[in-house]
Amino acid sequence: MNINDTEQWQRPLIDDRLTPYIEVDSVRLDQNLQLMQQKADEAGVALRPHIKTHKSIRIAQRQLALGARGITVSKPSEGITFILGGVRDLLLAYPIVHPKSVADLLRQAEQHQARLILIADRVEGVAAIAEACQQQPACKVSVAIKVDVGLHRIGVNPDTDEAIVIAQALKKNGLRFAGLISHAGHAYGAGNARAIEAIARQETHLMQRLQAKLQAAGFTDCPLSVGSTPTTLAAEIAPCLDEIRPGNYALLDLTACRLGLSRVDQLAMSVITRVVAVNDHFVIVDAGSKMLSSDKGPHGTSASGFGIAVDEAGHTYELTKLSEEHGFLLYQDRRPDVGSLLRIFPNHSCAVMAQSDSFVLRHPDGQSETQPVSARGNFI
Amino acid sequence: MNINDTEQWQRPLIDDRLTPYIEVDSVRLDQNLQLMQQKADEAGVALRPHIKTHKSIRIAQRQLALGARGITVSKPSEGITFILGGVRDLLLAYPIVHPKSVADLLRQAEQHQARLILIADRVEGVAAIAEACQQQPACKVSVAIKVDVGLHRIGVNPDTDEAIVIAQALKKNGLRFAGLISHAGHAYGAGNARAIEAIARQETHLMQRLQAKLQAAGFTDCPLSVGSTPTTLAAEIAPCLDEIRPGNYALLDLTACRLGLSRVDQLAMSVITRVVAVNDHFVIVDAGSKMLSSDKGPHGTSASGFGIAVDEAGHTYELTKLSEEHGFLLYQDRRPDVGSLLRIFPNHSCAVMAQSDSFVLRHPDGQSETQPVSARGNFI
Repeated sequence: MNINDTEQWQRPLIDDRLTPYIEVDSVRLDQNLQLMQQKADEAGVALRPHIKTHKSIRIAQRQLALGARGITVSKPSEGITFILGGVRDLLLAYPIVHPKSVADLLRQAEQHQARLILIADRVEGVAAIAEACQQQPACKVSVAIKVDVGLHRIGVNPDTDEAIVIAQALKKNGLRFAGLISHAGHAYGAGNARAIEAIARQETHLMQRLQAKLQAAGFTDCPLSVGSTPTTLAAEIAPCLDEIRPGNYALLDLTACRLGLSRVDQLAMSVITRVVAVNDHFVIVDAGSKMLSSDKGPHGTSASGFGIAVDEAGHTYELTKLSEEHGFLLYQDRRPDVGSLLRIFPNHSCAVMAQSDSFVLRHPDGQSETQPVSARGNFI
Repeated sequence: MNINDTEQWQRPLIDDRLTPYIEVDSVRLDQNLQLMQQKADEAGVALRPHIKTHKSIRIAQRQLALGARGITVSKPSEGITFILGGVRDLLLAYPIVHPKSVADLLRQAEQHQARLILIADRVEGVAAIAEACQQQPACKVSVAIKVDVGLHRIGVNPDTDEAIVIAQALKKNGLRFAGLISHAGHAYGAGNARAIEAIARQETHLMQRLQAKLQAAGFTDCPLSVGSTPTTLAAEIAPCLDEIRPGNYALLDLTACRLGLSRVDQLAMSVITRVVAVNDHFVIVDAGSKMLSSDKGPHGTSASGFGIAVDEAGHTYELTKLSEEHGFLLYQDRRPDVGSLLRIFPNHSCAVMAQSDSFVLRHPDGQSETQPVSARGNFI
């Protein structure tokens, strides 16, 4: 990523809407979706994209049409949004510790005959799922065991027998075991593609070793599902895997560029903003932290600023500071005119999409359409 | 703010809803609203609270009932939301550089006979407002000149004649001049109440000097409107001022506590979250950056973490890291149980409110009601 290579950043800025708004380039989006599906197909694994990045039923439907097996969601309410949007195969990659938290999701899944995979990383989680499932006995639920491969967020320690204890608890409770899942989110902190590749290999190694342990304990049908955009882009997909679950690959962002995982011309999402002031210190634009988020990158990665703003000629300006509804850009000799449009590439596209009710899908002929961010605000 | 004083932090955690959600303490909220109104009344200035903090019609109506003159909004779409919510006196504290950006707001203001103050900090801004007003000639619009008192965001340089040029441009365009307004947002970076007080005095000095200059140039009716929560809380309100426009004071947050502007028992807003995992490294809760924002504080203030989590006994845990739907808490000897509730006090309440569709108003008897964050997503 060279911030002085204007050709790399240059794209038309069409002044047909009030600012600020999220623009998704329909061609780049589709290329990103196709590339990942192709990678999964070539490796012979299923793709179950995480929709937390786009939260869009329209984009999820495109992922499914291209061959995705189903989707991954973060929260029960996201699952409901996507079931109502027509998706029939979902993995809820969130630990359930309270039966009520999934009651509505199970009801919707049963009613719409959607297949649902939940996760557990402790026996209390199995108990909560079992209790919830008793209310919805016809729901097609299975449970995967989440493995901590280094992020230290959720998951059993793969060096212990915790997974076997949970698998036994599933059996005892009459719940179908769906295999092992992991998320190597710590890969974002690895700094470069080579280090991320090493994390991907380590993840596969840990998962395979735990799979063998479970198989030896009698849990022979134990598929492996892994997934994060950095590991999936930086490494080959190991033949022992059954499923990958990247999310960010659909839109990408400056974090992916900085890690060497994406070219600038693959960035499908940006924010269109207008210059509202220029003073001796800063160029001020009409997008602030409420639009762009204050995210410096996922999982503790930390950019120096909040994004890069680009004018129509491809000149770049660092977004150095945000207040709630204003962005502060640094400038030197050149400065954009008050009233002109700029395109901001954010650090973390998932964080930006999650704040807007809608995004604008921009087609190559310049036409655009407004699409809802269907699962925005689905925190429960 | 002492994080080890359990009594200070202790409050009941009522397990009657799915988590995570924003809880606003109705008693503390009302005390904060009353205190600021009282301070304004005693100083003989008008209070025009900025609603960007709560974005709630219900809370704005309470502010008006207590004596507020009107409200301040950040964006034209916020103005529309509050006009439709019944507010009839609004200041849009945002520079207009494109006539279309206020067209709908002027239409709504005219239709509902709402009084509207816009701001300008350059002649192009006056031209944009004049053009917009031509389409809505019956709209009661006046224009205040924004003064940069040190934040270097929006506003004329008070050491130049820019304000006089703009006032003349307003006159030439037949637009009513509404005086001078400022926002000393850089006070957040001052570190403590004493330094903030000095900024408030400096702001008053700059505003008075510029007022005298305008009066000498023939613009004799030149009221002064200032406002930020830190300056308003840290300093006496100068008798020369006509209006104050604080926003954050309604809810307050850890930033206000760290600056010595708020006691812990005045914090009216928190996020109720559930522990979903405990591992050797962290306690994991079900609120992440999509719920809590990644904000470390307004205007470049920077906390060490993302908030403080408190259990029912008042023990505190630092929120050290966020992923999108998970919060990572540090713990030492004591650790909360998986499934238990914690209350998180965030760094920046405005940023948190802006991400949720609703908040829960908790009454002293434990009863609660869901209220919409009426202007959420109003970025345009």
